[in-house]
Amino acid sequence: MKTIEFWYEFASTYSYPAAMRISREAANHDVVVNWRPFLLGPIFHELGWSTSPFNLQPAKGRYMWRDLERICDHNKLPFTRPEVFPQNGLLAARVALAIEDQTQRADFSRRVFRAQFGEGGDIADRTLIEAILHDMELPTHEIIASTGDPAIKAQLRDQVSEAARVGIFGAPSFVTNDNELFWGNDRLDDALLWAAKR
Amino acid sequence: MKTIEFWYEFASTYSYPAAMRISREAANHDVVVNWRPFLLGPIFHELGWSTSPFNLQPAKGRYMWRDLERICDHNKLPFTRPEVFPQNGLLAARVALAIEDQTQRADFSRRVFRAQFGEGGDIADRTLIEAILHDMELPTHEIIASTGDPAIKAQLRDQVSEAARVGIFGAPSFVTNDNELFWGNDRLDDALLWAAKR
Repeated sequence: MKTIEFWYEFASTYSYPAAMRISREAANHDVVVNWRPFLLGPIFHELGWSTSPFNLQPAKGRYMWRDLERICDHNKLPFTRPEVFPQNGLLAARVALAIEDQTQRADFSRRVFRAQFGEGGDIADRTLIEAILHDMELPTHEIIASTGDPAIKAQLRDQVSEAARVGIFGAPSFVTNDNELFWGNDRLDDALLWAAKR
Repeated sequence: MKTIEFWYEFASTYSYPAAMRISREAANHDVVVNWRPFLLGPIFHELGWSTSPFNLQPAKGRYMWRDLERICDHNKLPFTRPEVFPQNGLLAARVALAIEDQTQRADFSRRVFRAQFGEGGDIADRTLIEAILHDMELPTHEIIASTGDPAIKAQLRDQVSEAARVGIFGAPSFVTNDNELFWGNDRLDDALLWAAKR
């Protein structure tokens, strides 16, 4: 089977529409998605940035929110601009890694994105994450507890290191089997076409 | 007639494919293009940047060149990475403004982009600009001389001010009659669809 690595950051606005449509569109191309949550913070920190470029550049930030609204409208996705941006996606990323099953990880990830950008919730709030796990009928307490394990913490650090190593500088990003990198929700179709041809 | 404002910077890599296809695609939507050259330098300078973000962020820069190569391949456009990046597009921008006729301005602009990103030339070189004007059978010496006029210099400064005023932070950008802003070559189709519906 052809596969594609889907690198996403829970705080990333454009990762939201990508996460909501990638499973369906990949299936149309007979491509399997490997969901790989990571953190952009450490990568931005290396550039000397203390926050999202959408906050550092106000004109770009204003544009991004309007653009995201248009994209959600086009894709018939709910959109509510959260009060806090960027949000702390550390807990969500660790929980996503703790869920090893890819179908469940994808489902959890979509729910987190919808809670944040569809409903304006704060994903740093543990009760929000717990409610999602509860709704999914997953072992909530066990999973939340595992996010304190050194193994899960190390796994997330390794994800960030690997993202940087393959040249990732933003999210969402897509990497094909032959190491072709595509960046941005607007490159998802190109990435899937590329992956399907290899 | 529906119109769209096409804001481009001669040093901007993604402005190249946009410039090469906008006339044909706008015609398909019965939309008229207003070619508006401007400079990104002063806008970047306001953010404290001394050069292109593609140089400030090496990983993003490496990605951009590969992405541009793929786009040119897809659009059947010649591509040669110029040795100098970003190039000084001041002369080209002033010449483009000095050419008031929109069809000729579009033709000149496409030739400048092709010389730079199709053939790897340096558009800061006056002889390159003169050769283009000569090939177009335009009054080369007269146009080059006019780029020293205070009126042309002021016109370019005004373009930059207006770009910033309408929220432009990058190139290419597209603005519709109802002031909807679209940024990037990958938003050209969306921008034309929006313009055509208004």
